[in-house]
Amino acid sequence: MKYKVGIVMGSDSDLPVIEKATNTLSALGIEFEVHVYSAHRTPDEAAQYAQSAQERGIGVLIAAAGMAAHLAGAIAARTTLPVIGIPCKSSNLGGIEALLSTVQMPGGIPVATVAIDGGVNAALLAAQILALSDEELDKKLKAHRQAQYEGVLAKDKAIAERFN
Amino acid sequence: MKYKVGIVMGSDSDLPVIEKATNTLSALGIEFEVHVYSAHRTPDEAAQYAQSAQERGIGVLIAAAGMAAHLAGAIAARTTLPVIGIPCKSSNLGGIEALLSTVQMPGGIPVATVAIDGGVNAALLAAQILALSDEELDKKLKAHRQAQYEGVLAKDKAIAERFN
Amino acid sequence: MKYKVGIVMGSDSDLPVIEKATNTLSALGIEFEVHVYSAHRTPDEAAQYAQSAQERGIGVLIAAAGMAAHLAGAIAARTTLPVIGIPCKSSNLGGIEALLSTVQMPGGIPVATVAIDGGVNAALLAAQILALSDEELDKKLKAHRQAQYEGVLAKDKAIAERFN
Amino acid sequence: MKYKVGIVMGSDSDLPVIEKATNTLSALGIEFEVHVYSAHRTPDEAAQYAQSAQERGIGVLIAAAGMAAHLAGAIAARTTLPVIGIPCKSSNLGGIEALLSTVQMPGGIPVATVAIDGGVNAALLAAQILALSDEELDKKLKAHRQAQYEGVLAKDKAIAERFN
Amino acid sequence: MKYKVGIVMGSDSDLPVIEKATNTLSALGIEFEVHVYSAHRTPDEAAQYAQSAQERGIGVLIAAAGMAAHLAGAIAARTTLPVIGIPCKSSNLGGIEALLSTVQMPGGIPVATVAIDGGVNAALLAAQILALSDEELDKKLKAHRQAQYEGVLAKDKAIAERFN
Amino acid sequence: MKYKVGIVMGSDSDLPVIEKATNTLSALGIEFEVHVYSAHRTPDEAAQYAQSAQERGIGVLIAAAGMAAHLAGAIAARTTLPVIGIPCKSSNLGGIEALLSTVQMPGGIPVATVAIDGGVNAALLAAQILALSDEELDKKLKAHRQAQYEGVLAKDKAIAERFN
Amino acid sequence: MKYKVGIVMGSDSDLPVIEKATNTLSALGIEFEVHVYSAHRTPDEAAQYAQSAQERGIGVLIAAAGMAAHLAGAIAARTTLPVIGIPCKSSNLGGIEALLSTVQMPGGIPVATVAIDGGVNAALLAAQILALSDEELDKKLKAHRQAQYEGVLAKDKAIAERFN
Amino acid sequence: MKYKVGIVMGSDSDLPVIEKATNTLSALGIEFEVHVYSAHRTPDEAAQYAQSAQERGIGVLIAAAGMAAHLAGAIAARTTLPVIGIPCKSSNLGGIEALLSTVQMPGGIPVATVAIDGGVNAALLAAQILALSDEELDKKLKAHRQAQYEGVLAKDKAIAERFN
Repeated sequence: MKYKVGIVMGSDSDLPVIEKATNTLSALGIEFEVHVYSAHRTPDEAAQYAQSAQERGIGVLIAAAGMAAHLAGAIAARTTLPVIGIPCKSSNLGGIEALLSTVQMPGGIPVATVAIDGGVNAALLAAQILALSDEELDKKLKAHRQAQYEGVLAKDKAIAERFN
Repeated sequence: MKYKVGIVMGSDSDLPVIEKATNTLSALGIEFEVHVYSAHRTPDEAAQYAQSAQERGIGVLIAAAGMAAHLAGAIAARTTLPVIGIPCKSSNLGGIEALLSTVQMPGGIPVATVAIDGGVNAALLAAQILALSDEELDKKLKAHRQAQYEGVLAKDKAIAERFN
Repeated sequence: MKYKVGIVMGSDSDLPVIEKATNTLSALGIEFEVHVYSAHRTPDEAAQYAQSAQERGIGVLIAAAGMAAHLAGAIAARTTLPVIGIPCKSSNLGGIEALLSTVQMPGGIPVATVAIDGGVNAALLAAQILALSDEELDKKLKAHRQAQYEGVLAKDKAIAERFN
Repeated sequence: MKYKVGIVMGSDSDLPVIEKATNTLSALGIEFEVHVYSAHRTPDEAAQYAQSAQERGIGVLIAAAGMAAHLAGAIAARTTLPVIGIPCKSSNLGGIEALLSTVQMPGGIPVATVAIDGGVNAALLAAQILALSDEELDKKLKAHRQAQYEGVLAKDKAIAERFN
Repeated sequence: MKYKVGIVMGSDSDLPVIEKATNTLSALGIEFEVHVYSAHRTPDEAAQYAQSAQERGIGVLIAAAGMAAHLAGAIAARTTLPVIGIPCKSSNLGGIEALLSTVQMPGGIPVATVAIDGGVNAALLAAQILALSDEELDKKLKAHRQAQYEGVLAKDKAIAERFN
Repeated sequence: MKYKVGIVMGSDSDLPVIEKATNTLSALGIEFEVHVYSAHRTPDEAAQYAQSAQERGIGVLIAAAGMAAHLAGAIAARTTLPVIGIPCKSSNLGGIEALLSTVQMPGGIPVATVAIDGGVNAALLAAQILALSDEELDKKLKAHRQAQYEGVLAKDKAIAERFN
Repeated sequence: MKYKVGIVMGSDSDLPVIEKATNTLSALGIEFEVHVYSAHRTPDEAAQYAQSAQERGIGVLIAAAGMAAHLAGAIAARTTLPVIGIPCKSSNLGGIEALLSTVQMPGGIPVATVAIDGGVNAALLAAQILALSDEELDKKLKAHRQAQYEGVLAKDKAIAERFN
Repeated sequence: MKYKVGIVMGSDSDLPVIEKATNTLSALGIEFEVHVYSAHRTPDEAAQYAQSAQERGIGVLIAAAGMAAHLAGAIAARTTLPVIGIPCKSSNLGGIEALLSTVQMPGGIPVATVAIDGGVNAALLAAQILALSDEELDKKLKAHRQAQYEGVLAKDKAIAERFN
């Protein structure tokens, strides 16, 4: 594996979403590291982590945050590595503010945004990016797709037997 | 005047909103400085400006930005001075994403948010804060309120004459 | 301490949000008083409280209300002290109507709005305003920031040990 | 005519909406008076107007305001006369914030809210209320409905001839 | 009492909201009748009820419905009596669709809309309308306001004792 | 052709949307009739039209309305023919209130809702429904799809020549 | 019965919504088949099912999906049979994203959209479409309407007895 | 250059957004191809393009679409290459429906979503992905960032001269 994935969450309350990502990365044999850095409470550490990511062997960054979710953008501002943003659901507005805060980035600094609480897709997107230069991972991803495909077929079979 | 107001806009396209603020500050005799610093394109300059603001004699910071408006939060993360955020209208969603990105700050780092494109109120709020330790400014603010009050009375008189 | 903080809630159902504010103020050694005044059910008391706040030694006002949250604006209309508005979550729309009713103030009468149910940040913003003329409070705020910063570092350490 | 209608707008920029109301009231022969009182810039005048409305022969109040539209609620807080609220469109959010600020009143102080910029319906609603104790007005309202009904029939005839 | 209040709900699942209205009307000594008529499932009964309301001694109609809440509008289309609409919360969108379906009536047919699930305010608004021609009810309403006012003062006293 | 399509608009301001539907129906050789009936201003005519539609040879109804768009639901309440609803854009909220008022029908009375201002798709959906018992129309629809398909291919060719 | 109804859900988590549809179809004696096909995980099976539906005796298709609900559109792209879309509620945004993803189809490919989680209405709409060429079903639908009508009358009677 | 970028738009009305992407890619010396394929009007061509992309030397796909924007998801369903989605603004709802339709993908098939009409950021994100295995491109990206950084500094200088 050429690159690692760097994962940052803005608060440890985002851990359940992150675990969906780490489980998916582990299943695909992708190395990763996990940190809690807040764009607002530890901005220097977040910036420092982003700035040093490339030289430390990280290929893709994943940042998860809720409410006025600035973390992915703050990370993206300090690196030219691809940054994936996961907007996390808050108790009040269902995560729509985190989604808009993450995806509506101004021109120049992109954040690859996935669905609210979308930990699995953040990991898969990271894997798809890394697979461009990793044939073995590309095969694993295709196998994962195939398994997912067969999972739906099995559910279809169960439903079809029940109803039809 | 004990303190200056530091004004930062994320893009010079926010200038019309900022000019509403600077005109109001000028009318109240408050000193200010204006900068273009982007939370994403010049994050170090934004951070540096926020960190050095207090020692440079700034008492209140105003930050205006649109879309995923992180600027006010990024400024607030680097200072304990009060930071006023102005969400700026974007072409697509009317500024609601800038409003949510500015106001829905997580606990620990407050941003005093005013209305979308609310340049006048950002300046007035800064003045109200500074007036706590500036009696002359307090008087000017009360005179401004009085003028505003009389302006509405005059409009009422004109309307009442027309209709009643 | 030169100034007190005046806290008003529109209904005693907003008490849990207010307690987040009072706990934070207490921890910073800031004096405060708490009242229940409704913009609609006791409008004269609310107005009277706002009008007399300055002469009673209050420096900053905090107003919390839900639904069509007019309280912060009603307070702000009667004083030139800085007024911080906390929109409170309602059972139906997640607090978005309280947020818009609080933040979208017309030019002339600003309300410094914090996040929905943002009691902690309302108190911190009040403290940051008062610290402009209170060096000791400024130090306490910086210590609070530092503690908050170290709290995130500790969480990062715990997470990093678990995952990395 | 037993009662007059009292109309208040928060800003003279709301005049086009108000004129839709006054034209409708005039057509129905209902007396009215029009004022510009701001809930925030002239709160005492607004309160005073509301408090004295009943004794001055007003039967229904209409209040139009935009943005964080507190005017109708502020009026309603000071009288037990029925208060009709017209949320006015703002340049940014289409009036949704004025609608929510007007309609989502807490229990105890109702505002009879009509559509965004709904000047005609505010006047008709006032007329329907006054017609309960005014038989002649009741007849005029029924004639207005009939004319409106015939207007749609005429449009239907024109369309039907064109297409069918 | 000169007039009764006619209450219609679109589904008996709206009963908890209606009971808030009937309790309030009962407390004010206002007569009322309650029906379940659906704008879509029993449209003729709903229309018939609205059309005959005036001759049966009804002075104000209250209509409560959820989702695509057409009931208040359908009632209003068939009478010139004032119609109060209560948008009811649905399980999915918090009642915002019921609010918009009730309040955004086209010019010509007003519906006096109150807050989502606002049963108490619908009843109070009906009472305020009827009080225009009923002095005794007007006194009861003023007493109700006074009691409400004193209730807030009592809560303020309790809170003030606790905190201050 | 076995059935006609019955088209109703709530106001003649909806005509541009309706013309998109009538042009599409004409191109497919489907007979139709067009009327202006308002759910609120001519409710009896709307009801009468819906009730008599089946016996007059209508197979599908299309109803277009804006704001609190009750027309499609009011039509659907009076017939078991399929009813297609077109929510029309209003000047304030972009048509979202018309969409919610049309689509969020309670269980029992369906409205087949298409996109905001979706006149073309309303006509195509009507055609697809009628084609179930009309082989010739089925062929025309498949030819229409083919032409549409080829139109995109032609655009792709033009773009590909330009860029590639 | 000339035609069957083909039902597709994007995930078996949508089953509770689908069962509301199948129960309704069963009660009306309409044959149906049920499948789990995902627009994204088994796109070929979904496409294949849609393409072959007509020749297999299906007259109407129902597609239920949540989040970025593409299923109904993907089905509609491959057939000229009428396609009914059911947007399913998600845990975060209440189903509004599924509603918009289903209903806002571009011109050329209509989806007949019903309410969020509207399984009953999807089935009734399918029945209404099929009844155009099935007199017996038309009678059953009218009986179903009648029963529904009587159900509301019974509820009205119960409520009226309780309150009046 | 190891890989090309494949760009697909759902309609040629999306061309202005796409040109922002192609200009950016050209400036970075990245090869690309552009196609018009509709998820609904030419679904086989869209699927075929996605399925064959990898073997034709494409490394990243960009898909732009408006309204119920299914294109990016439909592309993503047929490849394990990274897919970047650009939601395009529609005339009615400002692009919010395209944003939700693009970003709220179910687990298993990620789409890397950028801002509404975010053509520049889609291209930059593609470049950042490709730069993981292209050192020269990595340098160009860093130079682009530097130029962007200097552009903001220049604007700051101009503003500072004007105001300070």
